[in-house]
Amino acid sequence: MGFISKKLSHTGDPIGENADLVDNLQKNGVKPIKLIMGDPARYFKIQDNVIKAYQTAVAEGKNFYLEGQGLEELREAVTERYSRMYNVDFDKNNVIITQGVVEALQFLNHTLIYGGDPAILVAPFFTQYIPSITLHEGVPLLAHYNESKDWDLDIDDIKQTLKKAKQKPKYLLITNPSNPTGTVSSEKSLKEVVEFAKDNDLFLVADEVYDEIVYNGAKFVSLSKLAKGIPHMIFNGASKNYLATGFRVGFSIIPENDPKSRALLEAFVKLSYSRLSANTPSQYAMLEGLRNTAEHAKAMSYFVPQIAKRSNTAAKLVNETEYLTTVQPNSAFYIFPRINFDLLTIKDDTTFVRELLKEVHVQLTRGSNFGMPGYIRIVTLPDESSLTDAIGRIERFCKAHSK
Amino acid sequence: MGFISKKLSHTGDPIGENADLVDNLQKNGVKPIKLIMGDPARYFKIQDNVIKAYQTAVAEGKNFYLEGQGLEELREAVTERYSRMYNVDFDKNNVIITQGVVEALQFLNHTLIYGGDPAILVAPFFTQYIPSITLHEGVPLLAHYNESKDWDLDIDDIKQTLKKAKQKPKYLLITNPSNPTGTVSSEKSLKEVVEFAKDNDLFLVADEVYDEIVYNGAKFVSLSKLAKGIPHMIFNGASKNYLATGFRVGFSIIPENDPKSRALLEAFVKLSYSRLSANTPSQYAMLEGLRNTAEHAKAMSYFVPQIAKRSNTAAKLVNETEYLTTVQPNSAFYIFPRINFDLLTIKDDTTFVRELLKEVHVQLTRGSNFGMPGYIRIVTLPDESSLTDAIGRIERFCKAHSK
Repeated sequence: MGFISKKLSHTGDPIGENADLVDNLQKNGVKPIKLIMGDPARYFKIQDNVIKAYQTAVAEGKNFYLEGQGLEELREAVTERYSRMYNVDFDKNNVIITQGVVEALQFLNHTLIYGGDPAILVAPFFTQYIPSITLHEGVPLLAHYNESKDWDLDIDDIKQTLKKAKQKPKYLLITNPSNPTGTVSSEKSLKEVVEFAKDNDLFLVADEVYDEIVYNGAKFVSLSKLAKGIPHMIFNGASKNYLATGFRVGFSIIPENDPKSRALLEAFVKLSYSRLSANTPSQYAMLEGLRNTAEHAKAMSYFVPQIAKRSNTAAKLVNETEYLTTVQPNSAFYIFPRINFDLLTIKDDTTFVRELLKEVHVQLTRGSNFGMPGYIRIVTLPDESSLTDAIGRIERFCKAHSK
Repeated sequence: MGFISKKLSHTGDPIGENADLVDNLQKNGVKPIKLIMGDPARYFKIQDNVIKAYQTAVAEGKNFYLEGQGLEELREAVTERYSRMYNVDFDKNNVIITQGVVEALQFLNHTLIYGGDPAILVAPFFTQYIPSITLHEGVPLLAHYNESKDWDLDIDDIKQTLKKAKQKPKYLLITNPSNPTGTVSSEKSLKEVVEFAKDNDLFLVADEVYDEIVYNGAKFVSLSKLAKGIPHMIFNGASKNYLATGFRVGFSIIPENDPKSRALLEAFVKLSYSRLSANTPSQYAMLEGLRNTAEHAKAMSYFVPQIAKRSNTAAKLVNETEYLTTVQPNSAFYIFPRINFDLLTIKDDTTFVRELLKEVHVQLTRGSNFGMPGYIRIVTLPDESSLTDAIGRIERFCKAHSK
C-alpha cells in the first residue's frame, strides 16, 4: 500500500482548475475575467450591522472556544428563522453550527458513508458532493434534474436510480435553489420526492443555502416544510444569503426525532466537538444577522434585484448566441448553459473551458465538475458590463471554432 | 450494517464529559470551578494590535473566500517566524493554514490512515489524537513519556512500540511542549527520536502549538530544527501562543521536499480546497500578529511569567498534599498529577473526577482521556486564588476518601 490514501483521488479544487493557464496569462500581463467563484462578498458589501456586530464581538474578547455545537443563542436564532420563514418549529438542540455548509457535508459522509455505502445525488450538483462521498469509499449514484422542465427534479429518474442501487443508499441529497443551474425545484416535484423518500425509507438531505436569493417570480419551498414527520436534514448558512463566505458559518438542522434523525444528530454533535469550535466572533456576527430581520430585509431588497438583473442579462445574451442555450434562471447567481456542439469543432466541455481561457481570457467551470459534461457554469455576480464583455468574448470564441 | 458508521465510536467531547453533572449542579445553584479548557482567551486579553487588525479586516470587506491553502502573506509570515525563531527556511507553499491544529490532525489522518494503518502516539497525548485515527479505522500504537524523567521522551519505549507493530506505522506523532503534562522534551531525546525515525523510515509529526509558552528556565527545541533533511511535519497555530482559540487559525508546515513530504503536502493542499476556505478576517488578524514581533514580545513578556506563577503555585500546592504527585511543569498551562491510590478508597481516575465534581464542585479531566489512566489534568490558567481554592477542595475531597 502507498503512503497516501487513494480515497483522496477526487479531492481538490474543481472550481479553480486551470490555475496553470491563469498563471501563464498573468505572467504575460493578461488579467482573465474569472466567472468561477460563487462568492458574493467579492462583489457586494455585507450588511453594516453584521460588520459592526463582528467588530464588537472581537473587541469584547469573544475570541475563546465556543461549544462545539455552536453558540446557543445563534442556534436559537436559527430556529426562529425557520419558524418565521417556513412555519417550521424545532428545538435549538436540533441545530449544529458548522464551518460552512461544506463541513456539514463532511459530517454527513463521515457519519453515514462506510463500507461502500451508496448515496443518491442529483446532477448537476455542487462540486464537492462527490469527493466528500468517495473520501469515505462511498458510491455516488447519479440521478438527473430535467433540463427540459427548467431543471426541475424528475421523480421517475430518481426512482430508476434507486432501482439500480446494489445496496440501500444512505441518503438522497438535493440542492434547492440549485448551484449550478440557478433554478428552484417545484413544490410538486419536491412533494413527490418526499413521498418517494417516505415509501423507500430513504434519508433526505436538502442543501438550501441560496433560499433567499430567488427572483423572476419563482416560488421556493423549503424541504423543512414538506418533509415534516419524515427523517431529513437541511443545510443552510451565512455564506450566500448574508454574502458572508469568509465567516465560515453554516447551519445544519436535523428537525425530527425519529431514531435515524436522533442518531444522526448525536453523531453531528460528537463530530462538532471533535474539532473543538467554529470561529467564535463570526457566530456572534451572524446572531445579529439573523435577529435583526429589518436590516436583513433592507439588504436583500437591494441584493436580490441586482442578482436578478445580472442573471437575466447573462441568460439573454447567452440565448442570443446560437452556440449556447440556457434555461432561464430564477435563483442563486449562476447560469448553466448547454454547449451546442453540433455547431462547433470543439468536442467536449473540458477542451471548451481550457481553450476559452487561453484564447479570449474568460475562466468558467466545466459542467463535468458538476456531474454534467457538455455544459458550462457562468457566475452572474459581476456587473452587467463585465458580463456583457465576457459573454461577447465567449461568442467570439465560439464563432472562431464553428464548423 | 447500521445507519451510523461505527468509526465514530471514539469521537466526542472528552474534555467536557460529565456535562450532566455540571447541569445538575447549576440547576441547584452551584457554580463548579472548571479547570478543563485549555483556553487562554477566557482568562487573558488578546493583544490589542491583533484585535485591531481583525476589526480592520472585517470593516475593509475581507469577508470573502480565501484560497484553500490560506492567505499567501500569512503563509509567508509563518516562514519568517521559523526563520527568525529556529533558523529554519522553507517556502510559503510548504505551509497550509488550517482551521486550528485539530483540522491539521484530521487532514493527516484523512491522508495517511486507511486499511487499518497503525500510527504511533506517545501517551499522555492530546485527547483528539485517538478519535482522529479511529475515525479512519486506523490503529493507535501507544508509547509513553517517562514520568520519572520529567515526562521526557523515552526512545527505548518507542523502539519497543514499533517492534510490536504488525504493519509499518504511518507516522510517529509527538507533542512538545506537552498537553497534558506541561513539560518540554529534551534536545537529547528529540535527537534520538529523529535518528530513530530516520533509521526506520518513519514519518515524524510534532505538535508544537505551545512553543512560546516555556518557563522555569526550560529549553524548547523545535523538531523543525533537528529533523532537517528527513520527512516530517510541524503543527502550530494562533490558539495558544496568541491566546486566539476562537480564531481557528492553525499552521501546518511540511518543510522538506522528499517524495513522502511532497505527496503529503499535495494531499493537504487538496483537502484544504475541499473545504473551500478557513475564516478570512482571522487570517488577516494573525498576519499582523506574526509580523509585529515587537508587540508580540511585549504581550508574551506579561503572559508567560503569569502562566509560570500560576503553574508553579498549582504544582507546589498539589505536591504538598500526600494524595497527588506532579512533575514540575515548565511549559503550556497544565499540570498532570498522578493520583496516589494507595492512600485512597477510590480506585480509578474516572470515579475520582466524577465524585470530585459531585462532592466539592471542581471539574477536571481524567488521565484516561489522554491515554494515561490514574492521572488528572489540571488547567493552570485561572488566577492563583482560584487555583488555591480548587486544589484546597481537591485535598479535602481526598481526605474524605482516604483509607
